[in-house]
Amino acid sequence: MTLPIDGRKESMAELLGNLLVAQSGGPTAVINASVAGVIQEAGKHGAIEEIYGGLNGIYGILKEDLIDLNEEKARAIEGLKFTPGPALGTCRYKIDFKKKPEQAAKDMDRLFEIFQAHNIRYFFYVGGNDSQDTSNQIHSEAVKRNYEMRVIGIPKTIDNDLPHTDHCPGYGSAVKYNATTVSEIALDVSGMATDDGACCIIEVMGRTTGWLAAGTVLAKRNPNDAPHIVLIPEIPLNEEAFLAKVKEVVAANKYCVVVVGEGLKNAQGEEIGADKTRLDAFGHPVLSGAADCLLEILQGKLNIKTRTVRLGYAQRAAGHLASATDVAEAAACGEAAVRAAVDGKSGFMVKLVRANSASYKCTTDLQDLNDIANAVHLLPREWMSEDGFLPNEKFVEYARPLIEGEMKIPMEGGLPKYVTLDRVPVDKVTPART
Amino acid sequence: MTLPIDGRKESMAELLGNLLVAQSGGPTAVINASVAGVIQEAGKHGAIEEIYGGLNGIYGILKEDLIDLNEEKARAIEGLKFTPGPALGTCRYKIDFKKKPEQAAKDMDRLFEIFQAHNIRYFFYVGGNDSQDTSNQIHSEAVKRNYEMRVIGIPKTIDNDLPHTDHCPGYGSAVKYNATTVSEIALDVSGMATDDGACCIIEVMGRTTGWLAAGTVLAKRNPNDAPHIVLIPEIPLNEEAFLAKVKEVVAANKYCVVVVGEGLKNAQGEEIGADKTRLDAFGHPVLSGAADCLLEILQGKLNIKTRTVRLGYAQRAAGHLASATDVAEAAACGEAAVRAAVDGKSGFMVKLVRANSASYKCTTDLQDLNDIANAVHLLPREWMSEDGFLPNEKFVEYARPLIEGEMKIPMEGGLPKYVTLDRVPVDKVTPART
Repeated sequence: MTLPIDGRKESMAELLGNLLVAQSGGPTAVINASVAGVIQEAGKHGAIEEIYGGLNGIYGILKEDLIDLNEEKARAIEGLKFTPGPALGTCRYKIDFKKKPEQAAKDMDRLFEIFQAHNIRYFFYVGGNDSQDTSNQIHSEAVKRNYEMRVIGIPKTIDNDLPHTDHCPGYGSAVKYNATTVSEIALDVSGMATDDGACCIIEVMGRTTGWLAAGTVLAKRNPNDAPHIVLIPEIPLNEEAFLAKVKEVVAANKYCVVVVGEGLKNAQGEEIGADKTRLDAFGHPVLSGAADCLLEILQGKLNIKTRTVRLGYAQRAAGHLASATDVAEAAACGEAAVRAAVDGKSGFMVKLVRANSASYKCTTDLQDLNDIANAVHLLPREWMSEDGFLPNEKFVEYARPLIEGEMKIPMEGGLPKYVTLDRVPVDKVTPART
Repeated sequence: MTLPIDGRKESMAELLGNLLVAQSGGPTAVINASVAGVIQEAGKHGAIEEIYGGLNGIYGILKEDLIDLNEEKARAIEGLKFTPGPALGTCRYKIDFKKKPEQAAKDMDRLFEIFQAHNIRYFFYVGGNDSQDTSNQIHSEAVKRNYEMRVIGIPKTIDNDLPHTDHCPGYGSAVKYNATTVSEIALDVSGMATDDGACCIIEVMGRTTGWLAAGTVLAKRNPNDAPHIVLIPEIPLNEEAFLAKVKEVVAANKYCVVVVGEGLKNAQGEEIGADKTRLDAFGHPVLSGAADCLLEILQGKLNIKTRTVRLGYAQRAAGHLASATDVAEAAACGEAAVRAAVDGKSGFMVKLVRANSASYKCTTDLQDLNDIANAVHLLPREWMSEDGFLPNEKFVEYARPLIEGEMKIPMEGGLPKYVTLDRVPVDKVTPART
């Protein structure tokens, strides 16, 4: 190892070796744009020799399931920018030193066996909170083992709940899709309005935070537009106030569109969608989700025709409505990760920093991975109206720029033509894991 | 009344008067394109004096809620072609001579009071089965009352269940959206696949027919692509065969995407989503929908992580993914209705006729409204695979052309900018309805 050649503490001389990028956790519409950014930037740096992808995150890497990304066509790499779903596959596998110390130690040994066997010197993990924690552990192990490798986390989550970054790649696209859907459903329901009134409850993701639900407020161009009520996990449901609000909205507009984050809690702090008191024919509890619970609350108390929509996976996979801003930022995060690593940094997550300027602009910077793990960024209470039923102007100002711009998706037979990778495997060189 | 001027029985001399167009039933992404077609074609015919819209269908017309469509900007009329939801509003109101003969007779008197007061001589009703029945009744009443008026029904339903027409405007756009969603969710779920396998059940509309569910098969570009199983209301669920099929698919692909029409029946012919044996804490039955029922079946029997998506209203309102073919045909149906009426026809529905040619082409023709009412067009059994789990090539050949082409939707602030009508009211001239 050569000595630092300039004054920066983290910087070291050129580190020759191979790159490994992998994806983890729930995918987004732009999770592949970050991988494209990594690959395209890596190609510019002579220190990086081979560019490998790990299939299904850590879980696949432990099985030595690597592919050679330099074997992919340039067109496919560029196409990753508009292709949703994890092109490399993801996992929810955790290396958990607290709960499973023995397994975790074995996993780490195995990981470094593979890193060394393939001379991996650059490791990039695209993921949310848990994945950043994994990156941090891998970084620490590398230091401990005196194995020179640069580890940088790349943020990704439609939940937008990572701390220290202005927002998370993936969020803007999910909001663009959800808000579009809310505005379209509003045109439908408002046109069907009867004298009794009509209501539609749209359930979006967000187990802990209300960022996704709140984002649909961007569909509001006029004060009476949908969504009329946005319920978020951070603010427990007040059933009486909710019923009164629905009544008020229906009286004014003859229809009401409610958006609910799936993790909405009751006053006792329990998720309303996980109500265990409802039993099926065999006496098993029926878990039906937040929207269906609200439907029952409404149907029991108000005479309003109500329907529910549960967007589920559709909202994090809707590449056809990806935000061009989001795609560009996701790619930029991948590029920044490579530049930072080549520059000698390790143990950081790339973050987005909003410029304090009149027009929206974000740049990338780095945050110590120790600051990321186990911290959840909640929606600030002061970005919601006093009654807690709608995000306010502060939120709109924050979120609006994130959904700007559309991608041009190639179509074939009337449907989007997304890319799939050839996935040329890298030869396995270690004995199979026991 | 002048005598016929040529040999055609239906043809009469020019009928001077005003036009009334209205919408009825569940909206579609292209229901307004038909209204645009009516308005634009009507402008070409000197016999048609004023062009009125009835708000909320028959229900609003009974209240004399008419608007002057000639007051709308040309840009707004053109914009109707890409604006989902019913721009004029719809209703589910039925004039029912069988069940409510007194009310029906009163309604008819009132309708013709309004037609006469506004000199309505051309009446166009955009709707599904029930609405075509209403049009037929109004046509018969006009003949009976010797009130010269031409009544033409314009087909519209995402369900695609009207008889005698090759397909229904609205269907192609819903399929384009649903199939896109299935392909995107497949990218998501397949990338998340674990050793145990993952499954996603997507519920689409279709209470009686499986046209919408079947349409998602267009997402299949390769034999292993999603959807892997399509369950339609016409084929009762065989639980054992379904479980075996899911197991087989997961064994082969590690994931499985199931699409289910909301009206899927069990062997007893009951909707599985309307199972009354599940009770809430108060002992009331819980109705959770077909996808959630399938989820419970799977979770009870197989160890596969399963999630559900319920697209609901989103699928009939998704203007941002409307099929350009569908939009053009919906507009053409509106235009054809006006031409037929000016030509002296009444008591018909416009239908789409597929040309027997190598490349897809549809023209319009007319069908007697008597042939439409109370007939439902089911998905032919021979368009499904032998095991009943997938539409076959015959269906694909039928459906593929219907989703071709994309609309260019203006965007503002990152979201579609749909049009709203100014809705300049026509003065009420009759005493309010008692």
